[in-house]
Amino acid sequence: MTSAQTTQEDDQEPLSAADLRDAWPVLSRADRLAGFRLLQRDQAEELFLSLGPREHAELLEDLPTAEARSWIRLLPPDDAADCLQNAEPTRRDELASLLDEATRAEVRALLAYAEDEAGGLMSPRFARLRPDMRVAEAVGYLRRQTHDRAETVYYVYVLDQEQRLMGVVSFRELLTADAARLVRDIMLTDFVSVPEDMDQEAVSEVFAKTDLLALPVVDPQGRIKGIVTVDDIVDVVKEEATEDIHKIGGVSALGGSYLEVGLPAMLRKRAGWLSILFIGEMFTTSAMAYFQDEITRAVILTIFQPLILSAGGNSGSQATTLIIRAMVLGEVRLRDWFHVMRREIASGVGLGLMLATLGFGRIVLWHFAFHVYGSHYLGVAIAVSGSVLLVVLWGTLVGSMLPLLLRRLGLDPASASAPFVATLVDVSGLIIYFSIASIVLRGTLL
Amino acid sequence: MTSAQTTQEDDQEPLSAADLRDAWPVLSRADRLAGFRLLQRDQAEELFLSLGPREHAELLEDLPTAEARSWIRLLPPDDAADCLQNAEPTRRDELASLLDEATRAEVRALLAYAEDEAGGLMSPRFARLRPDMRVAEAVGYLRRQTHDRAETVYYVYVLDQEQRLMGVVSFRELLTADAARLVRDIMLTDFVSVPEDMDQEAVSEVFAKTDLLALPVVDPQGRIKGIVTVDDIVDVVKEEATEDIHKIGGVSALGGSYLEVGLPAMLRKRAGWLSILFIGEMFTTSAMAYFQDEITRAVILTIFQPLILSAGGNSGSQATTLIIRAMVLGEVRLRDWFHVMRREIASGVGLGLMLATLGFGRIVLWHFAFHVYGSHYLGVAIAVSGSVLLVVLWGTLVGSMLPLLLRRLGLDPASASAPFVATLVDVSGLIIYFSIASIVLRGTLL
Repeated sequence: MTSAQTTQEDDQEPLSAADLRDAWPVLSRADRLAGFRLLQRDQAEELFLSLGPREHAELLEDLPTAEARSWIRLLPPDDAADCLQNAEPTRRDELASLLDEATRAEVRALLAYAEDEAGGLMSPRFARLRPDMRVAEAVGYLRRQTHDRAETVYYVYVLDQEQRLMGVVSFRELLTADAARLVRDIMLTDFVSVPEDMDQEAVSEVFAKTDLLALPVVDPQGRIKGIVTVDDIVDVVKEEATEDIHKIGGVSALGGSYLEVGLPAMLRKRAGWLSILFIGEMFTTSAMAYFQDEITRAVILTIFQPLILSAGGNSGSQATTLIIRAMVLGEVRLRDWFHVMRREIASGVGLGLMLATLGFGRIVLWHFAFHVYGSHYLGVAIAVSGSVLLVVLWGTLVGSMLPLLLRRLGLDPASASAPFVATLVDVSGLIIYFSIASIVLRGTLL
Repeated sequence: MTSAQTTQEDDQEPLSAADLRDAWPVLSRADRLAGFRLLQRDQAEELFLSLGPREHAELLEDLPTAEARSWIRLLPPDDAADCLQNAEPTRRDELASLLDEATRAEVRALLAYAEDEAGGLMSPRFARLRPDMRVAEAVGYLRRQTHDRAETVYYVYVLDQEQRLMGVVSFRELLTADAARLVRDIMLTDFVSVPEDMDQEAVSEVFAKTDLLALPVVDPQGRIKGIVTVDDIVDVVKEEATEDIHKIGGVSALGGSYLEVGLPAMLRKRAGWLSILFIGEMFTTSAMAYFQDEITRAVILTIFQPLILSAGGNSGSQATTLIIRAMVLGEVRLRDWFHVMRREIASGVGLGLMLATLGFGRIVLWHFAFHVYGSHYLGVAIAVSGSVLLVVLWGTLVGSMLPLLLRRLGLDPASASAPFVATLVDVSGLIIYFSIASIVLRGTLL
């Protein structure tokens, strides 16, 4: 019995799969290959099966052909297809030729699908029956279907002569049914299926709604092409969350793990948004230049400016993060925009009042404690706290409405990243601050 | 046959489960109850089973006792336990009393576990066998185990007299094995199990590593307490991603969907971080006050200050988002800190040089185009672009090292939220900028 808690403890053996897996991210490609070939066969198999498609491709490209053959044949067809998709284009045919003929045909069929749609997720191997078999016959027939060709046998799919899906029957139903009955009479005909080109996020929603362990994938004629199992969906959900998190942080989707993406690729993924934001933020320079007279007359105003802008940026980051995630989870839809706006105006006023009070208190306190803000401290306090209130309200509104606006325009809501909202709010926040200060302090400081 | 694509299309019927589910988030609690009671039984069942534990609890609290009984009995024991956990504490006993006696005992046992550990995720219902049964006997025995009491029958668990887990056998193995063999001889004894108190994130990692559809949960004596199925893990992964995304955006975990969390609770979740950040950002006010002399002599310096600070904040947000997610996915561990630091120094220098060049170009261009920055434009351009380089490098370093430092201190790395890093970088960025400006412009502007 292996307890999941203790598998990493045993460090006695010379080199275990777990050791190598641990060191993997920081090893060079050559060291990975060398380490892999040092492992005993069982350890090597354990490691190999735990690797992702990109790592499979790299190893197989580097191994001698004879060795590569035995490894690629260890992969089920959906994993083999993912591996080929990640191999150098010039090496793909060579690697595909290492597969046995039947699997190669399956893999070629899978390669026609995009990686992120139902067809790209599915396994072409599943257990199948004809509707006119008796239950006893069906059990015997399933017994003869070779062991490792059916990915899951929890559900068995009932097909007509044209491979059209007629019904689904679970193993438990087959086992508990009268041996003399027809499969047709015990199968479930009110089953759920997904089309080949359904997006993987939509497939994961179908799983969430139905609580099934596997879903059949059918073409427009109702012919079954394969099955998607729920364990693949766990990876989809993680992958999509990573993409969303990166976008919210203002990074383009990395498409690989942090330590494995090369430095030039990493810089490219980050440079795009950083430059756009930097150029956008240049408008603050113009805004500041516009208010240069006010600043020259009342340098004290500049002292509070980072405080005010950051309050707007932070409340905007919060709002955009909340709304983007709620939209991804389907909790907030486009038509809820008015409801969201009302809520965020209430939140913005509440949070703005809170921060404005903190700001007002701080200025008055410092005035009496250190006499730093001159005789117009009350005017300054009013201008600052009024600006905080308005900028926070504005940041909250921009942060919450922007993702909805982007979706309305057919764009990705997650592009309303926290840094993007902060930049928008910086430019407008400056204008709000200096305008309020001009009004409040006219005749005194200004 | 129900195609998942078309289930939402049929709007003919007076009120369908799908209609009500769609309107659900924006309905008041009273309207939800009224709508639910308008549905026909089959539609109501579909809706009820698609709801979450909080919604189950609200409905059951509001329904008359006789109706509530039939609904709570529709729930499997793990869902019933989650529902009770979400009910008003004063109503829990009353709702529990509606369950049949056997389920009530199971539910009480489940309520002893925290919601986010293996025990809180598991179902106490699973198919079980004795090791000394023959395969034929075992199949007959499983046939007699009532239909809806075993959550999954893909795996069958083999227990000794003390309920200790001895092995696992899949239905396919039972079906394909010789009927005269003993269960003991065909069962897998090298199985993976998880302890009752294992955190749900760790459980999800075990699923990811093993590709199993269900895992047995055992107590310290090796007795099986229930099973966790992989479809529950999809929800865990989503929930954890939502929590991380909220934290990265500077919001405490909401613990509910956006539109369903009340406004006061929503404000509380957001106010905490916003106030801390606001108070932290007040140090910028002190920093600015410290450099007030320089500012008075060279107001032009303030013009570029939001640009420089935001460049640091944005690069810090990117870095912290990347590292937090990579740590959650296990791609980056504490011991990788030096590797990460080297990478981020390289990234920071690269990105900083790029933005510094953009900034330098902009100042020189504007000087020749609009003659706005006076005769010392070159000094200003050098001070600004030098500051951008250093602030971006600093932001990248702070953003990447802070999550690792927090983990080292035993804190949650995701607390290094994008707004938190931006605030840290604002304060230090100001000091960097004005210090560089003092050095570069000494004798000219300053």
